[in-house]
Amino acid sequence: MQNSKLRTLFKPKSVAVIGASRNPKKIGHLIFKNIIEGGFTNPVYPVNPKAKKILGKPAFSSIKDIPKPIDLAIIVIPAPIVPQVLKEAGEKGVKTAVIISAGFSEAGSKGKILEKQIKNIGQKYQMRILGPNCLGVINPQIKFNGSWGGITPKKGNIAFLSQSGAIYSPIVELLNQSGIGLSCFASLGNKADINENDLIRFLKNDPQTQIIIAYLESFKKGHQLIKIAQEVSLKKPIIILKSGATRLGAKAAQSHTASLATPNKISDGAMQQANIIRAQSLREFLNLTTIFSQVLSLKKIIGSRVAIVTNAGGPSVLAADAIAQTNNLLLAKNPVDILGDADAQKYEETIKTIIKDQQVDIILIILTQQLGTEIEKTAAVCAQINKNTPKIIITNFMGGKNIDKARKVFQKNNLANFDFPQEAIKALNKFHQWKTGKKRIITKQLRQPADQKIIITATKNGRKQLSGIEAAKILNAYQIKTPKMAMVKNFQEAKAEAVKIGYPLFLKIISPHILHKTDVGGVAKIENIKQLKHTINSMAQLKVDGFVLEEAIEGNIEIILGAKTDPSFGHVIMAGAGGIYAEILKDTAFRVIPIIESDAQQMLKELRIYPILKGARGGKGVSLKKIEQYLLAISQLITDFPQIKELDFNPVICTSKLAIVVDAKILL
Amino acid sequence: MQNSKLRTLFKPKSVAVIGASRNPKKIGHLIFKNIIEGGFTNPVYPVNPKAKKILGKPAFSSIKDIPKPIDLAIIVIPAPIVPQVLKEAGEKGVKTAVIISAGFSEAGSKGKILEKQIKNIGQKYQMRILGPNCLGVINPQIKFNGSWGGITPKKGNIAFLSQSGAIYSPIVELLNQSGIGLSCFASLGNKADINENDLIRFLKNDPQTQIIIAYLESFKKGHQLIKIAQEVSLKKPIIILKSGATRLGAKAAQSHTASLATPNKISDGAMQQANIIRAQSLREFLNLTTIFSQVLSLKKIIGSRVAIVTNAGGPSVLAADAIAQTNNLLLAKNPVDILGDADAQKYEETIKTIIKDQQVDIILIILTQQLGTEIEKTAAVCAQINKNTPKIIITNFMGGKNIDKARKVFQKNNLANFDFPQEAIKALNKFHQWKTGKKRIITKQLRQPADQKIIITATKNGRKQLSGIEAAKILNAYQIKTPKMAMVKNFQEAKAEAVKIGYPLFLKIISPHILHKTDVGGVAKIENIKQLKHTINSMAQLKVDGFVLEEAIEGNIEIILGAKTDPSFGHVIMAGAGGIYAEILKDTAFRVIPIIESDAQQMLKELRIYPILKGARGGKGVSLKKIEQYLLAISQLITDFPQIKELDFNPVICTSKLAIVVDAKILL
Repeated sequence: MQNSKLRTLFKPKSVAVIGASRNPKKIGHLIFKNIIEGGFTNPVYPVNPKAKKILGKPAFSSIKDIPKPIDLAIIVIPAPIVPQVLKEAGEKGVKTAVIISAGFSEAGSKGKILEKQIKNIGQKYQMRILGPNCLGVINPQIKFNGSWGGITPKKGNIAFLSQSGAIYSPIVELLNQSGIGLSCFASLGNKADINENDLIRFLKNDPQTQIIIAYLESFKKGHQLIKIAQEVSLKKPIIILKSGATRLGAKAAQSHTASLATPNKISDGAMQQANIIRAQSLREFLNLTTIFSQVLSLKKIIGSRVAIVTNAGGPSVLAADAIAQTNNLLLAKNPVDILGDADAQKYEETIKTIIKDQQVDIILIILTQQLGTEIEKTAAVCAQINKNTPKIIITNFMGGKNIDKARKVFQKNNLANFDFPQEAIKALNKFHQWKTGKKRIITKQLRQPADQKIIITATKNGRKQLSGIEAAKILNAYQIKTPKMAMVKNFQEAKAEAVKIGYPLFLKIISPHILHKTDVGGVAKIENIKQLKHTINSMAQLKVDGFVLEEAIEGNIEIILGAKTDPSFGHVIMAGAGGIYAEILKDTAFRVIPIIESDAQQMLKELRIYPILKGARGGKGVSLKKIEQYLLAISQLITDFPQIKELDFNPVICTSKLAIVVDAKILL
Repeated sequence: MQNSKLRTLFKPKSVAVIGASRNPKKIGHLIFKNIIEGGFTNPVYPVNPKAKKILGKPAFSSIKDIPKPIDLAIIVIPAPIVPQVLKEAGEKGVKTAVIISAGFSEAGSKGKILEKQIKNIGQKYQMRILGPNCLGVINPQIKFNGSWGGITPKKGNIAFLSQSGAIYSPIVELLNQSGIGLSCFASLGNKADINENDLIRFLKNDPQTQIIIAYLESFKKGHQLIKIAQEVSLKKPIIILKSGATRLGAKAAQSHTASLATPNKISDGAMQQANIIRAQSLREFLNLTTIFSQVLSLKKIIGSRVAIVTNAGGPSVLAADAIAQTNNLLLAKNPVDILGDADAQKYEETIKTIIKDQQVDIILIILTQQLGTEIEKTAAVCAQINKNTPKIIITNFMGGKNIDKARKVFQKNNLANFDFPQEAIKALNKFHQWKTGKKRIITKQLRQPADQKIIITATKNGRKQLSGIEAAKILNAYQIKTPKMAMVKNFQEAKAEAVKIGYPLFLKIISPHILHKTDVGGVAKIENIKQLKHTINSMAQLKVDGFVLEEAIEGNIEIILGAKTDPSFGHVIMAGAGGIYAEILKDTAFRVIPIIESDAQQMLKELRIYPILKGARGGKGVSLKKIEQYLLAISQLITDFPQIKELDFNPVICTSKLAIVVDAKILL
């Protein structure tokens, strides 16, 4: 139902442009012209009470006057009158509206009220809304350009979503020049209704779309995005350039206040979890799009072993360096340098020989202009070979205008040229990351019988934090180990409990009157019964209600596990290095809850201290399985009790067999 | 003297091309043609025994037949006959020879012998040699193109040195297109004689050269480079793209065997020390060259506060993110978004207003094609403003062919356009790094009276390692603290020494027969006299020559200091995190010896554990001054005794007042 409405966004059977204008400088004119002149064959109606005809088409005073039903209304009128017109569209039975007009939530408090109004109107009439404050929508498959962008994209297999309309023109122009086309484009604007999640879900089943690329300044509902992307990215790679990654950037984006911005590391972890490819710059966004388009369009066989054919020594050394710095690619053999006098035939012979090599999956072809160089002919050779081999061919003809002729050959043949070898290698590496990221290990999680009463009672009583003993009970119910503990009144009781716990142990006073127990000598490490007696007697001088005995845990390696609530992603889970290194080295990894086993494994692998955990350099390491199990248990606990706001296990002391949560904080 | 010879390389009064050819496909023809047709006005003589005239110039059978003296001989003949011809050139009194021919050390063992021969001939005749296996030399200032490169560079202020001839054409073409010209170009080839160090030293005083850029696959004498660059970079920035940074890359470069390659981290430290700007990719190499050229040509005032003027929201958010991620730049104010309908006049007014703002040093101007965009006119506005302001103007017009007209305007006005905002910001940040890197704190080093006898005697005796007690004596002479120590025969002696050292202390057996002292119970921590007596008595059961008493040092933070010999840079000094983190986190920083105080400070700042050393999060931290003093002392020690091959202080235990080298290994 929702999806069928979105179909009318990209494939409308009829379109009305409300605010279509005769003035060629107005956006209302541009959009109407783009639709008419773009070759769209379904009916398009201009709505403008002041005009009789626009570009030869009779204009209507109101959308209600159009005698036929309307799928899609594009609205380009001043913001204050949008609600009224939108209501008319709703009454008319319009399925989807694209609101181009600016002056909504991006423009202050009055605009925010207007945006709320249009949202309500959309809901009332079950009409989906794209925008407001956007560039429009384009579907090159049916020659439908419902935008005011000055450039028309080629027809292709890439769906492009953008939160910034202004980024459309340079990106699409550069893609066009590389011979890369779009299946569709949507400008998200303020995302009052339709957001990236709706569109990615819709595009999953769009047969024209093989790859989804998006420029985003915020995640509308990050939690949902991860769920959707996990499914979609199995079939169709999703490449996202996320700006506002820093406080400064987020502030510039004004999409949310800086303090509410999701930390970059959480976005990283979340995208990793959903196998979304994250581009770090506009350049990388384009390079990734190029590689993915090229490899997937021709259904190439994916491998990791790269051979280099070059007429230039320097660039091939840089390419070899770049390969060594990836985690997925291998140099199949030393670069084949066919020297400066290599002509097209020499390239052809060499490449054809290398293609036969079973040790080679990818061929990177480097060319700089030299003595015998035949730029255009060699480009044609590469394009021809690319069509006839299942192996991946990457070209890297270097230069400026000199190689424009080669670029034209490549463009015609859907083989994009990379400016520099290092960039091609980096993009190829991320392609592999996507390919390997699809293998997620899902194991059935055992739901643990939690001590529900504790949390429910605490929530009812309005308490914000569980006590240590309460937290320990919950943890134990989820098979998370905590130190053995006992509450005692006096030495007699303590003596008996100490036998069960075992020495050494910690003795701590219970006292509502004393805030800093350590300062008054209210905490001590006890080695034996004699010391226990002596210490209890001396602590009894303080104003105490009793004592806690706690097993003293010894182990070499400390980690931190936890969970918190992110404004965009909801509950996220964290693993990190413990002790002084935690905060200073910021050695942490995040995922969105719920996680699966491979997420837990991956989180630990992302930590810098992973080699220490694994047991490097003679160290014994810890039980990774145990920590993974705890991460899954935390994920389950939070799923069972979403009222948990924050959870902090610090430290978790780890040995080669055990992991024990020494201090657990659970905030509700 | 040396320098005057190099002057004949770039500014020859007369040139002979030995191997000049009539065949237009031959390199010997291309070079001769490039010189003649490039507009070089000094005499040029072709040498070719088989031709009478080449391109209208009478040819000579031998260089010796030329009636006039020759400054520069360019040799383009098969490698095996190069030595004979080079000898003739030497006899003729040629000052500098450029050997274009390949077939030398890059081509196996026979070639290596040939290269040794030409080196000897050069030395015999005091004739400098560029190459062999190179592209040649170019000086646009006097229209001298002594290369077989197909492109002629514009005249400018950048000296370009390249170890790969093949990189010349794409780089120079792209620089030309950005309106950036060269003061000179030299292709280094195999560096048989003239290397990057000679040229950088020469260029220091070349009035046409403001910036030196180099592509290098190896450092011929890294140690020397650092010394020269430290001086040159104070006035003229040096930008280096170093390939072969990984083992794979170094192997591909074949410039040295992979095992001898300098680790990337040492190259990093060394370049930092000499304030050399390191480019990480060809793209960055070009972007850095652009920024440096632009800022220095117009003698702009350098500041760090960036304002952004934009007609596009997205790219300005990305720019703000990029600024936040630099360590040198600040966003002066929220980006000024003049929206999609901004024309050239709107840009002009806005930029002019912002220029007046005293809080702004740099203005980044972003443009994408939108409704009201006037690309060419706005480019002209930027170029005009750039000429009349001492503030830095960076343009970032985004798109493909669409903005070619703007590129032409920029090119004419020496204002380069950046493709993407993030790249401009990154380059600008490195400009600042150079600017701030010039402030080196040099303090006079006190030369410590070392216990010279120990090292000299050990060297004479052919010993490879100093004993712990010898090492301690040397360290103490350089005011490096070691644990108090004493050798004793029995309990009586031990008792007296233990009082001087103080408890706790370590007791260790001395025994040439026992290799692993710990395994046999030959090492113990002693807390008091009773334990001392007991332990000595029980250890005496072993086959021992005596005992060592050693102060037990206690402190929270361990670091490692050391020095080793690098094949390219010679002695390098290292500081790193101690304990298990040292090897796993690879938290180390390197510099080339000798270092100065600011190097030592910078090394510690580069460590990830720096916040811990400084005392973060309630930690006490260590005495940074003390560690810096030790680094300077190690530098001095190695300078005094270069026969020290390796030096390893591990661990150095640090407190807020002291730093004590617990274990010192000194290899000769």
